[in-house]
Amino acid sequence: MPHETALSRLAALLGDRLVNSQADRRLHGQNESHYPEALPEAVAYPESTQEVSEILTICHETGCPVTACGAGSSLEGQHLPLQGGISLDMGRMNKVRAISAEDLNCTVQPGLTRQTLNTALRDTGLFFPVDPGADATLGGMAATRASGTTAVRYGTMRDAVLALEAVMADGTVIRTGSRARKSSTGYDLTHLLVGSEGTLGIITELTLRLQGQPEAISAATCHFDSIEDAVNCVILTIQSGLPMARIELLDHMMVRGFNLHAGAGLPEKPHLFLEFHGSAASVAEQAESFAGIAAEFGADGWQSATRPEDRTALWRMRHNAHYASAALRKGGRVWATDICVPISQLAEGVLQAQCDAERLGLSCTIVGHVGDGNFHAGLSVDPDDPAEMARAAEFSHALGETALRLGGTVSGEHGIGIGKQGFMAAEHGPALTYMRAIKQAFDPNGILNPGKMLPDGPA
Amino acid sequence: MPHETALSRLAALLGDRLVNSQADRRLHGQNESHYPEALPEAVAYPESTQEVSEILTICHETGCPVTACGAGSSLEGQHLPLQGGISLDMGRMNKVRAISAEDLNCTVQPGLTRQTLNTALRDTGLFFPVDPGADATLGGMAATRASGTTAVRYGTMRDAVLALEAVMADGTVIRTGSRARKSSTGYDLTHLLVGSEGTLGIITELTLRLQGQPEAISAATCHFDSIEDAVNCVILTIQSGLPMARIELLDHMMVRGFNLHAGAGLPEKPHLFLEFHGSAASVAEQAESFAGIAAEFGADGWQSATRPEDRTALWRMRHNAHYASAALRKGGRVWATDICVPISQLAEGVLQAQCDAERLGLSCTIVGHVGDGNFHAGLSVDPDDPAEMARAAEFSHALGETALRLGGTVSGEHGIGIGKQGFMAAEHGPALTYMRAIKQAFDPNGILNPGKMLPDGPA
Ligand SMILES: Cc1cc2nc3c(=O)[nH]c(=O)nc-3n(C[C@H](O)[C@H](O)[C@H](O)COP(=O)(O)OP(=O)(O)OC[C@H]3O[C@@H](n4cnc5c(N)ncnc54)[C@H](O)[C@@H]3O)c2cc1C
Ligand SMILES: Cc1cc2nc3c(=O)[nH]c(=O)nc-3n(C[C@H](O)[C@H](O)[C@H](O)COP(=O)(O)OP(=O)(O)OC[C@H]3O[C@@H](n4cnc5c(N)ncnc54)[C@H](O)[C@@H]3O)c2cc1C
Repeated sequence: MPHETALSRLAALLGDRLVNSQADRRLHGQNESHYPEALPEAVAYPESTQEVSEILTICHETGCPVTACGAGSSLEGQHLPLQGGISLDMGRMNKVRAISAEDLNCTVQPGLTRQTLNTALRDTGLFFPVDPGADATLGGMAATRASGTTAVRYGTMRDAVLALEAVMADGTVIRTGSRARKSSTGYDLTHLLVGSEGTLGIITELTLRLQGQPEAISAATCHFDSIEDAVNCVILTIQSGLPMARIELLDHMMVRGFNLHAGAGLPEKPHLFLEFHGSAASVAEQAESFAGIAAEFGADGWQSATRPEDRTALWRMRHNAHYASAALRKGGRVWATDICVPISQLAEGVLQAQCDAERLGLSCTIVGHVGDGNFHAGLSVDPDDPAEMARAAEFSHALGETALRLGGTVSGEHGIGIGKQGFMAAEHGPALTYMRAIKQAFDPNGILNPGKMLPDGPA
Repeated sequence: MPHETALSRLAALLGDRLVNSQADRRLHGQNESHYPEALPEAVAYPESTQEVSEILTICHETGCPVTACGAGSSLEGQHLPLQGGISLDMGRMNKVRAISAEDLNCTVQPGLTRQTLNTALRDTGLFFPVDPGADATLGGMAATRASGTTAVRYGTMRDAVLALEAVMADGTVIRTGSRARKSSTGYDLTHLLVGSEGTLGIITELTLRLQGQPEAISAATCHFDSIEDAVNCVILTIQSGLPMARIELLDHMMVRGFNLHAGAGLPEKPHLFLEFHGSAASVAEQAESFAGIAAEFGADGWQSATRPEDRTALWRMRHNAHYASAALRKGGRVWATDICVPISQLAEGVLQAQCDAERLGLSCTIVGHVGDGNFHAGLSVDPDDPAEMARAAEFSHALGETALRLGGTVSGEHGIGIGKQGFMAAEHGPALTYMRAIKQAFDPNGILNPGKMLPDGPA
């Protein structure tokens, strides 16, 4: 046990809420992507901010690594305790603290999941829009700056988080932001913590903006003869300013995955899945405008989903894209990766990805929140085949280079974690030095999620 | 000359673009609010990022203060070179670098003003929405995290800035963000620099999100019998999710100012100034929904402005509110201050402000971007009357306390500068330590806008 002192002090503090069973450790050392298992020495289950503060004080004093864990659904290995120490499971801090319907916001603990929050909001006329495929925790979503299918209309976690409570490396509890919609007072620590992947502080409370449930919703799907047609339809739709609530691209491989995994029975062609929000009249007007644009690109096979249960089924299928990609190959794992480019470069980005996957002989699905210029490539890989894993790594590297060449970013939403540290210097250049300076100032002993986000070595 | 070495090295670098005439120094030592003059030792006029970098290198090495200046319109004394050194006038770096209509963004130099940008965008079908009253520079607006009348619909500078180029204290040039709409890679330095009031780095280029010019626009004004009615109408409008493009409150004193300053001829009652954006059908629908809500609160005296020239006149008048407040008192100056509260607390905030002004015998206008919960109090004061200035300070202090008591922030858009440092500890508590740590890490010699934002002394 490299961190024996820390663990015995933590055990004294937490009693049976510090667990070192093999089962618990393995649960917190796994991931949904392709990263190898990495076990914590123990798992801590705090129940209050005060407890998180005491835990961090101990870890700060003893140099014991602390890796926060929400739902453990992150796809770049963010929650894996690479250097041992403890996994800080936030799952028991999962209360809704306050719903302020009149201010269109709520305050929650970080272990609450997005679906549970939306259940709690059901009778308020409001909803929380950010929806990664997984039922992730709001703390984890803030920490990865997550987004989802509705980001094109309602924004990402960056836009959704108004205020935070966080415990810093040495146990200091801070509050950032306020319940007001905007502020010009001081450095924006809220948005410094959002996206920091648990490396700068542990989020113990979030105040989130909510959205009004639209008066009318309609969803639809259609398909295209080629991926260019589908993507160009998206580009023109966004450029024309249509306030799409959702516009998701699926290439023919992804559709095949849905057919296998969810029995979708869709023609294996590139599809768009769409949703319109607004008043009844405006939803009708939007759908008509979209259909006009789509017709220019030969859209066909229209299916609409107006009943709530049909829409739920449609988006549930979409949210399970990761598992549908897995279904394409028995016993395979999915190497999930994403990039985001300026919308005008989307067609080039998608075609380049398809071409690279073909060149490397990889099974690859493409699916994405394309209204933002963001898409995912899901490779079905065999982690025990080193040659294939090397080709997958080559693909992933080429995809990141494509993103940078097209003026974009190596991740629109999955983040850096373990997998994309190699791009930090290329994407950020000298700015990386300032990121390191912040890390050093906030966490001088390097206990918060060590080995993540910031690559070792000179900038 | 306390910074002789620096100034002679800067003169060698810049030639006649380092100016120490009394006229230039005074121009950069003045402000539109009530702060006393504070002159720089000289004014530098850089023409390129490279030059800014060389200037900062010299100032970093010699400990010479550098206070960036855009249009000099900030209202909390942000651009005043409190500790001498140089004023870095960004005005000559005012080019549009690129307009990417297909990506709905543009890249500009920091000295460009918002109106000049919008002129350049005129034929693209796009516009840049953030509109503080003054024709401020985009660098200054980013540095103060400015907003304006359309923030309720299109967001503030926080939402508008996609990417920055900045020169850091020691002359290092960094780039943050990208032209993609979202990213999850690394710490969000873009939003750390936005709102940092020139204390963390000098912005030398900005990539900004643009908005599509709405197909239809209509504007209207109406008045109410009481300020409560007007504010409660705003609250219900926002809560009902109407996508207002603009919703501005003016109390009867502000209206009196408009009558004096702009010959507005409006009844001296609380008013709302409104604008709706969308398709023709949706604008009509929105206006009707709003009228329905407003009727509940006894709105009257409807006037609509559908012709572009009428709308321009309306919003020009609104943008000159500061000068209209000044018109209320011959030879007076305006002590401008703002707060932002959760929307449900808006009525209480406004009433408290009016009551405090009355108690203190101050002439006060109230006007604001109330859709965000943000409003301004403009006191007409005589800077040579110490007793009145003390009462104005007491008002301003009470207003900040009101904001905090109501769960808001001591500034929604004007910022901290000189005037609100006294609130930093109360608003941010222990988080202030982390702000100081960033400042220390980024600007160890303390040359960037010293004496601003972060109060001296222990947190
Ligand atoms: C099927 C599937 C679909 C997905 N779709 C999307 C998608 O559409 N969009 C998207 O953005 N992502 C998507 N993801 C990835 C994942 O859901 C997101 O990254 C999510 O935000 C992770 O949340 P989590 O609760 O699982 O966090 P975890 O994976 O547990 O942790 C993620 C990171 O956050 C840190 N962290 C967790 N809680 C805290 C806290 N309280 N304070 C500080 N740091 C903390 C962890 O240390 C870690 O670095 C998908 C994943 C799967 C499996
Ligand atoms: C009539 C009037 C109405 C106003 N209405 C509003 C309003 O509605 N909303 C609002 O938000 N504000 C408003 N203001 C305040 C002011 O317009 C804003 O604060 C504006 O953002 C300041 O921009 P500027 O170019 O004048 O910056 P300056 O005043 O020159 O500078 C402001 C701060 O930014 C820093 N700075 C300037 N350029 C840079 C740069 N390139 N890099 C780094 N730091 C830099 C300066 O050092 C200083 O700290 C109003 C002011 C007036 C006079």
